[in-house]
Amino acid sequence: MARDGIEVGKLEEKELKLSEDQVSHLALDIGGSLIKMVYFSSSSSCSSDDQKNGFLRDGTSTSSGNLDYRVLSGRLHFLKFETSKISECIKFISSKRLQHYGDQSDDAPASDKHVVKATGGGAFKFADLFKEKLGIILDKVDEMSSLVTGANFLLKAVHNEAFTYMDGVKDYVQIDHKDLYPYLLVNVGSGVSMIKVDGDNKFERVSGTSVGGGTFWGLGKLLTKCKSFDELLELSHQGNNRVIDMLVGDIYGGTGYSKIGLPSTTIASSFGKAISENKELEDYRAEDVARSLLRMISNNIGQIAYLNALRFGLKRIFFGGFFIRGHEYTMDTISVAVHFWSNGEAKALFLRHEGFLGALGAFMSYEKKGFTHTAHQFTEQHSSVAKSPPFCTGDGFESSTHADVKDNGCIEFRVQVRN
Amino acid sequence: MARDGIEVGKLEEKELKLSEDQVSHLALDIGGSLIKMVYFSSSSSCSSDDQKNGFLRDGTSTSSGNLDYRVLSGRLHFLKFETSKISECIKFISSKRLQHYGDQSDDAPASDKHVVKATGGGAFKFADLFKEKLGIILDKVDEMSSLVTGANFLLKAVHNEAFTYMDGVKDYVQIDHKDLYPYLLVNVGSGVSMIKVDGDNKFERVSGTSVGGGTFWGLGKLLTKCKSFDELLELSHQGNNRVIDMLVGDIYGGTGYSKIGLPSTTIASSFGKAISENKELEDYRAEDVARSLLRMISNNIGQIAYLNALRFGLKRIFFGGFFIRGHEYTMDTISVAVHFWSNGEAKALFLRHEGFLGALGAFMSYEKKGFTHTAHQFTEQHSSVAKSPPFCTGDGFESSTHADVKDNGCIEFRVQVRN
Repeated sequence: MARDGIEVGKLEEKELKLSEDQVSHLALDIGGSLIKMVYFSSSSSCSSDDQKNGFLRDGTSTSSGNLDYRVLSGRLHFLKFETSKISECIKFISSKRLQHYGDQSDDAPASDKHVVKATGGGAFKFADLFKEKLGIILDKVDEMSSLVTGANFLLKAVHNEAFTYMDGVKDYVQIDHKDLYPYLLVNVGSGVSMIKVDGDNKFERVSGTSVGGGTFWGLGKLLTKCKSFDELLELSHQGNNRVIDMLVGDIYGGTGYSKIGLPSTTIASSFGKAISENKELEDYRAEDVARSLLRMISNNIGQIAYLNALRFGLKRIFFGGFFIRGHEYTMDTISVAVHFWSNGEAKALFLRHEGFLGALGAFMSYEKKGFTHTAHQFTEQHSSVAKSPPFCTGDGFESSTHADVKDNGCIEFRVQVRN
Repeated sequence: MARDGIEVGKLEEKELKLSEDQVSHLALDIGGSLIKMVYFSSSSSCSSDDQKNGFLRDGTSTSSGNLDYRVLSGRLHFLKFETSKISECIKFISSKRLQHYGDQSDDAPASDKHVVKATGGGAFKFADLFKEKLGIILDKVDEMSSLVTGANFLLKAVHNEAFTYMDGVKDYVQIDHKDLYPYLLVNVGSGVSMIKVDGDNKFERVSGTSVGGGTFWGLGKLLTKCKSFDELLELSHQGNNRVIDMLVGDIYGGTGYSKIGLPSTTIASSFGKAISENKELEDYRAEDVARSLLRMISNNIGQIAYLNALRFGLKRIFFGGFFIRGHEYTMDTISVAVHFWSNGEAKALFLRHEGFLGALGAFMSYEKKGFTHTAHQFTEQHSSVAKSPPFCTGDGFESSTHADVKDNGCIEFRVQVRN
């Protein structure tokens, strides 16, 4: 499946494109399940005069009057691989010579030159492997810090990045930069981290849960024999959770437990109906099992997120991480959970580039040597992305349910780089 | 398995004992998975003079000076059946003629005479069945109210009812009646209810989760082919969750993620290791699967309970419901979760009669016609219970891991009853 990790063979036709572009700033987020990769490619670079001529959307600059920089025009690319197939990732980097596109302005000895920013636990665990196979030194960037930097960048710089999803309706939310903080960032990877974000680099990991994407995929694999996360998601889309979940109506009968506001359709016990029925796993449809599992996990994440938002008086909860994957039912369940538990006071928001927060954060950490740190200077040209994804089709950042999310494969932008 | 529901055949030898005793006040809690039964048996009754002579432990009485009552000496009995085998419960009630032991002072017409207090969803769902098969009118008592009444009764009237459990050490906690409220009551049945308790009949259901005992048993049955809840618990006792759970160390390597205080042994993703391994369900030991499942659910309940306690500034969290079942590892995981998330500020407490809160609450609701409502008047004679359980051995209220919990089969006490 293309969505489960890039298949190198299919990219051969794109090699030429890559070599024509000038690639730089490779960054990695090596998680428990997935390796997320971000890099920048520029087909042209412009002098700082371009900036004065209005290339940057808001015209601001942290280094006004300083001409010691240039503006690169190009694209951010997003790819992913399964961590268990890390050799494919290494092979891909090697075949594309991406190891040369990390931090090239480093003054270290020649043997240490290929320094690549990396976050996630794998930046520690696989450091030796990357050095041995590719001669890359992984420059470790803190995982929470990367997630926050990535989220802040997207929320400030990318148009139509955040949206709500409820009852099948997707609504883009315009974020007022001055009113962004504080918010709760919930990153649903293999496990879940919940981070209170108070500003640029001002954050605290306040909670988390081990019931995350790895649980959905891991338990789902055991229960359904699915071969991939996306296959499992697709199955869940066709399932009916009421076959296995014990509903309030199954306990109380048709009326539900009206006194405390629990209608008969509320799930009283996830997988609870499996108790009483004389059935084995094989007697259930994989679709229904997948649906119950997805609903259990999404609802649980939504509830714990809301309880943490409540602790700190946070009205907005942004959900990121590869678990979400633009999947309608996942977002709907999370939204309903947040809405239900908060009596409509808190809101679940989702991000179009949800899976790449950490990788983007690592990418942004090149700032000291390359990029300047003002996120405002990034300009996404949404329409051109939609029309001409140059490299990213088939790179795994598609949704099975949202045609429009296909446009998210890369962000076209201009970036100010110090010379 | 005797612990999974009383086996009627085995009780034949005890019939004589039952018929010798005077049985009264049958009460039922009919949940999604289990039917819990409580009734009172007295072998002797005493005049109100007995009370004056010091039968009651603390000597208080709400009706001092009023001789219109008598004091019964006897025992509270606890039994359970699987809801899916409700016919066994009905057969048992019928064979013991327990239907006559509800509310006998009712002035209703003869056909309506057998009124039995019942709570839980099944009191609604199975009302017609009980009427048809036994001629019993189920007098429905609100489920949350019953749980609270039952818990308050146990905490006030039964010596050594509450205890903490951590690192294998069980510590009984003496409850100061004047300092009992407020507390959080977490009842872990098929699903989980979380109730803020502020006093007698002063409470609010503030939260809950569908990830409860029904999930453990339901998912566990599908994953391990276990035939009973207790078999699954027993399996989990012998398992190792690290085989399937993805630990922080599996992502980060041996050091863990020390910056945010996550050691390498912390579970990052429940069942997350199943993602990357080329194994199917059959390749895992049922023991390890059961252990991961128990840990995931116990930890999740502990975390959500803590977050709710925090919302309302509640320092004590009492865990009840049949999921706990005196199981060491379950209690330990819940305790660790509450301790971890609260930085040691909140405390998990468990109840010896954990599974019967609702049934006890329904039992206590006979007060208007029979029992007076002052819980202080109940006296548990702990030592005599330990020495001579008269009826309750094999009735399902044993623990597989705690020999001393065997004594909990019944509570011997004296009770004031209006004539």
